[in-house]
Amino acid sequence: MANSKVAGPEIERLIQLLARLPGLGPRSARRAALQMIKKKEQLLVPLAEAMGVAVEKIGVCETCGTVDTTNPCAICTDPRRDQSMLIVVEDVADLWALERAAAVNARYHVLGGNLSPLDGIGPEDLNIDSLIERCRLGDISEVILAINATVEGQTTAHYIMDRLAGIEVNVTRLAHGVPVGGELDYLDEGTLAQALKARTQF
Amino acid sequence: MANSKVAGPEIERLIQLLARLPGLGPRSARRAALQMIKKKEQLLVPLAEAMGVAVEKIGVCETCGTVDTTNPCAICTDPRRDQSMLIVVEDVADLWALERAAAVNARYHVLGGNLSPLDGIGPEDLNIDSLIERCRLGDISEVILAINATVEGQTTAHYIMDRLAGIEVNVTRLAHGVPVGGELDYLDEGTLAQALKARTQF
Ligand SMILES: [Zn+2]
Ligand SMILES: [Zn+2]
Repeated sequence: MANSKVAGPEIERLIQLLARLPGLGPRSARRAALQMIKKKEQLLVPLAEAMGVAVEKIGVCETCGTVDTTNPCAICTDPRRDQSMLIVVEDVADLWALERAAAVNARYHVLGGNLSPLDGIGPEDLNIDSLIERCRLGDISEVILAINATVEGQTTAHYIMDRLAGIEVNVTRLAHGVPVGGELDYLDEGTLAQALKARTQF
Repeated sequence: MANSKVAGPEIERLIQLLARLPGLGPRSARRAALQMIKKKEQLLVPLAEAMGVAVEKIGVCETCGTVDTTNPCAICTDPRRDQSMLIVVEDVADLWALERAAAVNARYHVLGGNLSPLDGIGPEDLNIDSLIERCRLGDISEVILAINATVEGQTTAHYIMDRLAGIEVNVTRLAHGVPVGGELDYLDEGTLAQALKARTQF
């Protein structure tokens, strides 16, 4: 591609890396790179700094599986959170979506995906053992399965349900406000809040 | 917003900065940030490095106005480029688009925008004086006005035409392959290459 000799390999590399982000193709990555370079002081410098900070500080919480700058994370160590309630999500993006909905004041457990035999994803690839362990050891009275209403999500929910059999814990799931096949992260906050409040027995 | 207490101000700041990039809204900025954090070694670390390099090395070429890691830029110093031909563009994105089309082997002059009295953008806000100076001093025999086919673009082209009166230089413009009202950066490379080859007398 002629572009590589146009502006030095450094810019080309920046564009290629930006193009790997979700939502940015090669064309929009070029525009984003150019915007950064033009607005060097307002955009490129602070972004480079923010990413440097992220590289140094951000990691995975060993308790719940979310990402944060502390381990355990701010949510796991927050004394104002209800310690008896655990919300199980597939992904950190879902945790963020639920927090934006601000519907409950519980703690979370991030599975890191769904069971998917076709893709070779089994229970050992997800944070399921640690979930069972938290339920067994902790003072958890309710586990809310806030898992996507997809086939794989529901397979995962049933598997967790089976694994929790024999442990003294009430398992609920989100109310049927969540559209079938829909992903939590794309829902508006009002729908999410309602689905949480009207959650039903699993 | 509840999100700021979820995962520390560092992540929130990263998301806010990403949301300022063209093509990314708040939601896609969150997804992009999360993707980076999850793929720390493959994405976040190299991106942070590439941006650090960009902060240190990338600047504006004082000769032609493009961005590069050297000043003068790689194009201005390339001895294989036709020294007698200058392509005038509004923006670095247009220069990149023309280079991708790989239709001519000339040098460039980046105006940095268009004349727009309504927005208070006059000739002194663009790299027009330096263009006239290059044409007066250099061995330029042809100036190709590769300016967007918009009202403001054409106003700018006519203004440049007037300023070049009395200087021994042939002024051409892109052929009418460029759609009226269209922006160069969104055109496919074949159309751009054809428009360049069939350029007409201004
Ligand atoms: Zn945690
Ligand atoms: Zn240059």
